[in-house]
Amino acid sequence: MRIKVINPNTTWSMTHTIGQAAQAVAGPGVQIEAVSPAHGPASIEGHYDEVMACMGLMDEIRKGEREGVDAYVIACFGDPGLDAAREIARGPVLGIAEAAMRAASFLATGFSVVTTLERTVVIAEHLVVKYGMQSHCRKVRACEIPVLELENPASDSYTKILDECQRALREDRCGAIVLGCAGMADLCQRLTQALGVPVIDGVAAATAMAEALVRAGLGTSKLGDYAPPLPKAYGGLLAGMAPEAPPAQ
Amino acid sequence: MRIKVINPNTTWSMTHTIGQAAQAVAGPGVQIEAVSPAHGPASIEGHYDEVMACMGLMDEIRKGEREGVDAYVIACFGDPGLDAAREIARGPVLGIAEAAMRAASFLATGFSVVTTLERTVVIAEHLVVKYGMQSHCRKVRACEIPVLELENPASDSYTKILDECQRALREDRCGAIVLGCAGMADLCQRLTQALGVPVIDGVAAATAMAEALVRAGLGTSKLGDYAPPLPKAYGGLLAGMAPEAPPAQ
Amino acid sequence: MRIKVINPNTTWSMTHTIGQAAQAVAGPGVQIEAVSPAHGPASIEGHYDEVMACMGLMDEIRKGEREGVDAYVIACFGDPGLDAAREIARGPVLGIAEAAMRAASFLATGFSVVTTLERTVVIAEHLVVKYGMQSHCRKVRACEIPVLELENPASDSYTKILDECQRALREDRCGAIVLGCAGMADLCQRLTQALGVPVIDGVAAATAMAEALVRAGLGTSKLGDYAPPLPKAYGGLLAGMAPEAPPAQ
Amino acid sequence: MRIKVINPNTTWSMTHTIGQAAQAVAGPGVQIEAVSPAHGPASIEGHYDEVMACMGLMDEIRKGEREGVDAYVIACFGDPGLDAAREIARGPVLGIAEAAMRAASFLATGFSVVTTLERTVVIAEHLVVKYGMQSHCRKVRACEIPVLELENPASDSYTKILDECQRALREDRCGAIVLGCAGMADLCQRLTQALGVPVIDGVAAATAMAEALVRAGLGTSKLGDYAPPLPKAYGGLLAGMAPEAPPAQ
Amino acid sequence: MRIKVINPNTTWSMTHTIGQAAQAVAGPGVQIEAVSPAHGPASIEGHYDEVMACMGLMDEIRKGEREGVDAYVIACFGDPGLDAAREIARGPVLGIAEAAMRAASFLATGFSVVTTLERTVVIAEHLVVKYGMQSHCRKVRACEIPVLELENPASDSYTKILDECQRALREDRCGAIVLGCAGMADLCQRLTQALGVPVIDGVAAATAMAEALVRAGLGTSKLGDYAPPLPKAYGGLLAGMAPEAPPAQ
Amino acid sequence: MRIKVINPNTTWSMTHTIGQAAQAVAGPGVQIEAVSPAHGPASIEGHYDEVMACMGLMDEIRKGEREGVDAYVIACFGDPGLDAAREIARGPVLGIAEAAMRAASFLATGFSVVTTLERTVVIAEHLVVKYGMQSHCRKVRACEIPVLELENPASDSYTKILDECQRALREDRCGAIVLGCAGMADLCQRLTQALGVPVIDGVAAATAMAEALVRAGLGTSKLGDYAPPLPKAYGGLLAGMAPEAPPAQ
Repeated sequence: MRIKVINPNTTWSMTHTIGQAAQAVAGPGVQIEAVSPAHGPASIEGHYDEVMACMGLMDEIRKGEREGVDAYVIACFGDPGLDAAREIARGPVLGIAEAAMRAASFLATGFSVVTTLERTVVIAEHLVVKYGMQSHCRKVRACEIPVLELENPASDSYTKILDECQRALREDRCGAIVLGCAGMADLCQRLTQALGVPVIDGVAAATAMAEALVRAGLGTSKLGDYAPPLPKAYGGLLAGMAPEAPPAQ
Repeated sequence: MRIKVINPNTTWSMTHTIGQAAQAVAGPGVQIEAVSPAHGPASIEGHYDEVMACMGLMDEIRKGEREGVDAYVIACFGDPGLDAAREIARGPVLGIAEAAMRAASFLATGFSVVTTLERTVVIAEHLVVKYGMQSHCRKVRACEIPVLELENPASDSYTKILDECQRALREDRCGAIVLGCAGMADLCQRLTQALGVPVIDGVAAATAMAEALVRAGLGTSKLGDYAPPLPKAYGGLLAGMAPEAPPAQ
Repeated sequence: MRIKVINPNTTWSMTHTIGQAAQAVAGPGVQIEAVSPAHGPASIEGHYDEVMACMGLMDEIRKGEREGVDAYVIACFGDPGLDAAREIARGPVLGIAEAAMRAASFLATGFSVVTTLERTVVIAEHLVVKYGMQSHCRKVRACEIPVLELENPASDSYTKILDECQRALREDRCGAIVLGCAGMADLCQRLTQALGVPVIDGVAAATAMAEALVRAGLGTSKLGDYAPPLPKAYGGLLAGMAPEAPPAQ
Repeated sequence: MRIKVINPNTTWSMTHTIGQAAQAVAGPGVQIEAVSPAHGPASIEGHYDEVMACMGLMDEIRKGEREGVDAYVIACFGDPGLDAAREIARGPVLGIAEAAMRAASFLATGFSVVTTLERTVVIAEHLVVKYGMQSHCRKVRACEIPVLELENPASDSYTKILDECQRALREDRCGAIVLGCAGMADLCQRLTQALGVPVIDGVAAATAMAEALVRAGLGTSKLGDYAPPLPKAYGGLLAGMAPEAPPAQ
Repeated sequence: MRIKVINPNTTWSMTHTIGQAAQAVAGPGVQIEAVSPAHGPASIEGHYDEVMACMGLMDEIRKGEREGVDAYVIACFGDPGLDAAREIARGPVLGIAEAAMRAASFLATGFSVVTTLERTVVIAEHLVVKYGMQSHCRKVRACEIPVLELENPASDSYTKILDECQRALREDRCGAIVLGCAGMADLCQRLTQALGVPVIDGVAAATAMAEALVRAGLGTSKLGDYAPPLPKAYGGLLAGMAPEAPPAQ
Repeated sequence: MRIKVINPNTTWSMTHTIGQAAQAVAGPGVQIEAVSPAHGPASIEGHYDEVMACMGLMDEIRKGEREGVDAYVIACFGDPGLDAAREIARGPVLGIAEAAMRAASFLATGFSVVTTLERTVVIAEHLVVKYGMQSHCRKVRACEIPVLELENPASDSYTKILDECQRALREDRCGAIVLGCAGMADLCQRLTQALGVPVIDGVAAATAMAEALVRAGLGTSKLGDYAPPLPKAYGGLLAGMAPEAPPAQ
């Protein structure tokens, strides 16, 4: 089984970390391919970054389809382009926010999300509504760390995140923590040990669940809302990204 | 890894079918144990059956804990006793309704549930609200088959279910079908082929996802709402089921 | 008119208190019967206790039906087994959480619930959603008193509860208090005087409303969701609890 | 105990019917006073009628307060002026829509409302949202009978209403019917017998529940949202309706 | 184009301020008529004041219809009588709470409302639910200023409001402020400059949007829920307010 | 005042129609600039088309900012890139779905949306949830016309749309129609005359409301969620689209 984990930003050092987190939960025989797109933002910290990341992300999914990938993980906590990706993929496509929140709902009656910058809190909150997690998500909290700062070993990211998690456990009546950024994947184990509650990294959750779905023989529905895009012309720089007619069967 | 799949009714022939469905999706090295409780209803077709199934179900989880089980699946679409089970288990406990709906939400923007008797529709609808699936679940449909009739090879259960699924696809604008009874597990593959959309059997979904969670190092939160029951006396026939003080550490 | 008030835990001293609270609001000619089941937990402080209380509770309702009881009150704030009880009763069955919240919504635009242990807060919150009281319930608050401690005259339960109620009035912008445990029934009058706002004890609210419904000629619907359980075999210790076919008419 | 039942329209023949329905459920020693205001619409069949009924309605409540009334019922299914009435009353004030929906939720997992004209459906639907009854109310149905036509013995109102109720039971998966107009109070018993499910007349439900609340020692909260209106000048024809300063205590 | 701005209280000095705020945003050729009703409360600070303001308000709309007014603004943050007004008007009728919240939702992902007395907070909160603004409205805040005190140049209303707005920006994670009283219209510009975020005065928002709707050729729907009131008799002082049959066409 | 109306697809004939609809509602002195992006899909009929339209759309907004545009309209009913556009614009940015639904809510208690292809229904439904319009939007209906077919004078688009609108008025109890595609803008007047209810074209609604907001001195909040994107590197083809540091002030 091949699972392609796409970090929609172009920072390959983060992609490497993400790939390791995915590999760590993959079952025997599961091949993880972690990539960043050729085009797009170095980090995703707002709505604009998010929509600008989609072209490169779609490009990676299109490549994956040509290469026979079985499932995809979109490794950014805003789940950018998720519905679009599902239109062009046959196998399951999981966003890490969606997967992490679903996983948390299996383990605790309430969870809090700890994310990077306050300006991304609203993105997570909109996803909470989209996914129907309003009763489960107690609070979305930011710790004011820029995404790429997570990569900086000299920063005190871990301490800031730990502090915010502890505040969440004290104040939110939550039983689990959801990490609100793919770049936090490598902190998950350490935080789990320090906090004594389930700490859910979306990369691990999405990868493991994507594998589970494939193992259960399930793929994206091609009836209706996620049917392949209608073939049509695309203009300008995007001409090569136009949906093509499906091969005659 | 040991996953215990508990059919909360006492009909072992159905338990056997359920066990096979679970085994079929289990990864290498995962041991499936499918059981029915010693006490309880022969089938679960309403609220009363559901609460009466809980004692036997709890008994099986308590046994599982003593034996080192890693995760549990409650294989009845009403997810009976789910919160209670989570209080007494260390590993993840998944209900099949919850797991199937979560899985469906990864694969289609909308799904319909096809269940057995109309009187159980409200149970599924309450779970839809509890799990926040109101935007995803397009409709819960019954096909008026008593649960145990699913076991009867002479019945036309398959045809009735297929008909209702087709009605759902025509009328509900859904892209996936969730099977509303553990006893339908063995029909899933045939329905998938006939319908051409994802058909989700909760037993398979819950087993695969439970395995995924364990693989990701996740268990039930023991902080707060799912903390172990407080030690106290239970009276009468239930004296033996009283929660005990946790072993000194 | 006979109203049976069932304290689902087995602590008869609490049952006595509950019976007095019910009697105090009963109209002329209404006979209150307050009981505890033969089997079950000494107190209900979590999901596990709750499902384990249901067998004994159902047993009491079945007895009540044989004896011609007109209405039932389930005197535990988690409203355990409420839907199941309605399947087997002809007259109205009221949970005290449900009745108290409904009553509060008649008297104030917002109320707060003051309950015992924090671990039961989530149970009340789930009921708030189930009953559609999200706009009315401002907050559920715990005061960390174990249920049976309410019975202990030497404890300072009253003071702790009064403090938490006052905090609620100051911080939650609520106009009424709902007491979150049947064991608080005897404190209701004192708290009302001290606080100067409606303080709603669910035992009184449920008993008075149950009587109101019977007086209005209303009973539980026997069409559809609350129809009597289908007759079937129950196994093991529960054989005697199996639903029987209704008498031929 | 004195309960004042206010029919907010000026049609006294309907007020008489309403008074009888209230009296029929009142307990021993409860005195029912059924009145219509001096000013206002002959029937209430829309938003404009509703707001124009409020002045007369408030006038009746003010009179009631001077006379020591213990509780009020607003006998129009739009629950006009309910929040305003609660500001000026000490005892409970119940709207019949609110009381009927709350009562129905005690007796069935789902109910449908059968009302008069289609143009009033939206009024009931807004109340369903306001009262949080979205999960309980399956549908609001009109049978296109003008309100005053209910009074006309030569009309076939009963048959039209019965038909619509039967349609509701067939199509809405509901277990109870809520009558959507105070003018239907006298049909309740006949409909109950014909339909075999709980049929809830709001006048009876509200009267019985108001009595229950008073018996439980409960009145409208005077803290916060339902505190007495602030004293101030009112201009023109409404000068006499201005809130006065409460008597010094 | 004629837009009639109705201040539903009888304090003409406030009406004058409101008229100026409306005029300031009106396009060329738009004639603003700002009025107070002949009958009603001097200020609106609760549910009772609100329903008592409706008769005078309806009177003004009826006059407007006879005079060919194109659109109406109801200049009180509780949006009193809004649905009723729409039944009797041909052109658009906008409440200032509704318009301000809609405008805010175009400009920020979240806004907070700053209103006068705490007892009116619940009125705004009910409107938030009615208008579906629960995800957009972060909080409704009061600053304990009686409505008419806003008119008093010697008061420190501006400072109190500014303080509360700043508290909102610090604590609520909101990006815009909605002023919760028509009497604050003249403070809007000053607050905008002091706060550096959009501050939305409902009078300006409603007037500008009403003009926009008229310019787009849109009026109130006369099909169904907002169809003209049915002709019928009104009794007592309200006889002259009875709906008349529409002129034969 | 300059309002830039961006048709996010690259079909300039449709852009021309859209520009005319915007111009028709613009007030005196308002300059409308209608454009299509240089890059992107010829029509938007699904999630994939939508995300692929965003780069070109952002490019147009960036140009608009450099040229001093006062407000923007995104003229595609899926409101693609709306939040992102708001991050990079100072003036208001309105999506036509959002504006049309808000406008409809001012004119009727319920509206139905009539859109093009069934596969886009879910996009509109997600917006209904995002905008809190669940109580107002009665139904989203498709009439199975590909977007570009609207441009084809030989097609019977008008008749199909008219039929679906009439079905909506008969079956959905709605009082207004929202047109679910910018390409329907030129049919609005004809449909209004044929149907006799408000028919809302989002292009007109958004343009008129954007003008209203600018006239009221309101722009997009730059505090928090819609603050300008953080400066950072973008890779590959998107290097030129990277957010720049704001000019020193």
